[in-house]
Amino acid sequence: MTNRQIRLQRRPTGAPTSDDFSIVDSPVPVPQEGHVLRRTIYLSLDPYMRGRMSDARSYATPVALGDVMVGGTVSQVIESRDPKLAAGDFVAGMDGWQQYVSSPAAGLRKLDPNLAPISTAVGVLGMPGLTAYVGLLDIGQAKSGESVVVSAASGAVGSVVGQIARLKGCRAVGIAGTAEKCEYLTRELGFHAAVNHRDPDLRGALRAACPDGIDVYFENVGGVVLDAVIGLINRGARIPLCGLISQYNASPLPPGPNLAPLLTNRARIQGFIVLDHFDRFGAFLQECAPWVRNGQLRYREDIVDGLDAAPNAFIGMLEGKNFGKLIVRVSTDPTRESGRV
Amino acid sequence: MTNRQIRLQRRPTGAPTSDDFSIVDSPVPVPQEGHVLRRTIYLSLDPYMRGRMSDARSYATPVALGDVMVGGTVSQVIESRDPKLAAGDFVAGMDGWQQYVSSPAAGLRKLDPNLAPISTAVGVLGMPGLTAYVGLLDIGQAKSGESVVVSAASGAVGSVVGQIARLKGCRAVGIAGTAEKCEYLTRELGFHAAVNHRDPDLRGALRAACPDGIDVYFENVGGVVLDAVIGLINRGARIPLCGLISQYNASPLPPGPNLAPLLTNRARIQGFIVLDHFDRFGAFLQECAPWVRNGQLRYREDIVDGLDAAPNAFIGMLEGKNFGKLIVRVSTDPTRESGRV
Repeated sequence: MTNRQIRLQRRPTGAPTSDDFSIVDSPVPVPQEGHVLRRTIYLSLDPYMRGRMSDARSYATPVALGDVMVGGTVSQVIESRDPKLAAGDFVAGMDGWQQYVSSPAAGLRKLDPNLAPISTAVGVLGMPGLTAYVGLLDIGQAKSGESVVVSAASGAVGSVVGQIARLKGCRAVGIAGTAEKCEYLTRELGFHAAVNHRDPDLRGALRAACPDGIDVYFENVGGVVLDAVIGLINRGARIPLCGLISQYNASPLPPGPNLAPLLTNRARIQGFIVLDHFDRFGAFLQECAPWVRNGQLRYREDIVDGLDAAPNAFIGMLEGKNFGKLIVRVSTDPTRESGRV
Repeated sequence: MTNRQIRLQRRPTGAPTSDDFSIVDSPVPVPQEGHVLRRTIYLSLDPYMRGRMSDARSYATPVALGDVMVGGTVSQVIESRDPKLAAGDFVAGMDGWQQYVSSPAAGLRKLDPNLAPISTAVGVLGMPGLTAYVGLLDIGQAKSGESVVVSAASGAVGSVVGQIARLKGCRAVGIAGTAEKCEYLTRELGFHAAVNHRDPDLRGALRAACPDGIDVYFENVGGVVLDAVIGLINRGARIPLCGLISQYNASPLPPGPNLAPLLTNRARIQGFIVLDHFDRFGAFLQECAPWVRNGQLRYREDIVDGLDAAPNAFIGMLEGKNFGKLIVRVSTDPTRESGRV
């Protein structure tokens, strides 16, 4: 029995390639006293990981060359030498791109598989969902009756942003990169409108979708999308800055939007990192888990099978190729009868 | 007796020229019942006026072609048909680029010439001072021990920002456009450091002046200055966005800074307009007027003589040619023995 790991082989310049990763088979660790050995079921792939591959100054230390790539996971306990957990328990953690981990239970969150599918712990009811909740409500201060626009709207964070906005009485407008994604936003997630960012008249399309202007713009993308949005913001608008995926592969960094609309509209752009807001996890679950259970807050998963598929799935995500929350199924999920993809 | 006026003749493209203004002699108005006739003593020239010359969408309606240019003023009442004011009183108002105005007293603020020179009502104790106070303390939330950087630091707003920062226990760093201005900031106004924005290594000079990074950047300028500053902001930094004078003559508007530092540092840029904050005027005067009287808060005036000099003085201000608060002395100030320039 080996522990397959995907490690950072090389720091990418521009878009990552599969050569930036190495696949290594290590021995499965033996749990010490106080440790918990678990098998990874789901590995979350998220845009922030591109930042960890780089050694540019950022909010978190980069992955060291030769280290296992970081990542959120859902795992099942195989052997526990800590009384807080037992073999068979499901836990959410940050175990990274590998099949097995043994470490103390601190930092693991025990999951109840009867409350929601365990994969949601890295999606709609995990860090992406919390990011949407905090960014929209705490940083963005969205209020009923306001117009909310979100980019990367069919993604793990964006899809939750738009649906919470709708559930809070806002007009929800999504920006996505294909007609199919746009249709999904309005037909399945209840967004009021959707705009394709490849529209040659993006600004005109946004204006049509936001007849009362834009009060909150939840930014995941940057680049031409931010450029188009910023000209349409209302007085007092808030722009929670969650991600800038359009430039994660760029070096040097491109210029940003002209900021005159912020000045004339007394608006603000505010960066935030979800790591600072875990104190809101309880409030988030209390409000959003019931919505997920009763179907008012929907989610879509884009599941790829096997750890070896992770690098290419990650590379594709940075180009917008995924559709829904991108998850690697590292091993079989015993709570699902058949793989729902 | 005529009322000389300077009117908007043409909307400028790029930098304004004297041909964009017309000089017109009109009859001096006769005050109706309830009105107050006054003579302009000081006309304030401020960068925001460039925006009013344009019909681009902004926070205020533009000056109509053929209308008198807007502007803050200090005047003396000649004849009052409102019991609230009497001939000889000094008032601050928004009488624009002209010698005489008659209108209701509403909107006029009576000045006490014994408290401070009346010209300060368009400078350190007027709208520029309030802008500095609100922007630094309310929008920027500057706190003792933090590093505050301000651009256009020797100007009417910037000079007050840096001094209030110092008086509140912050490290105050100014950015200005000449060695003389930089020396003035540190020698006469007590800034802890000053940086010339023409320094070929602006970012390096800023880094040396801000060894602990930047917590608050009070932005008056935009362009390369904002670009250099944004790479040095600390976690949780605030950037009150007060002006973007480097681009007021630009068309189309240039791109802005890359926003990645806002994201990684959980920082914010927030536009504000002082018009929204007149409720803070009382608190501002209460705190700052004593500092002005006892010399802890100093100011410098750049006074040009005669209304006809206003257009060229204004054009020069947009290029940074003024040194201190730019004021046109439209008529003799009876409270000053001799002209202090």
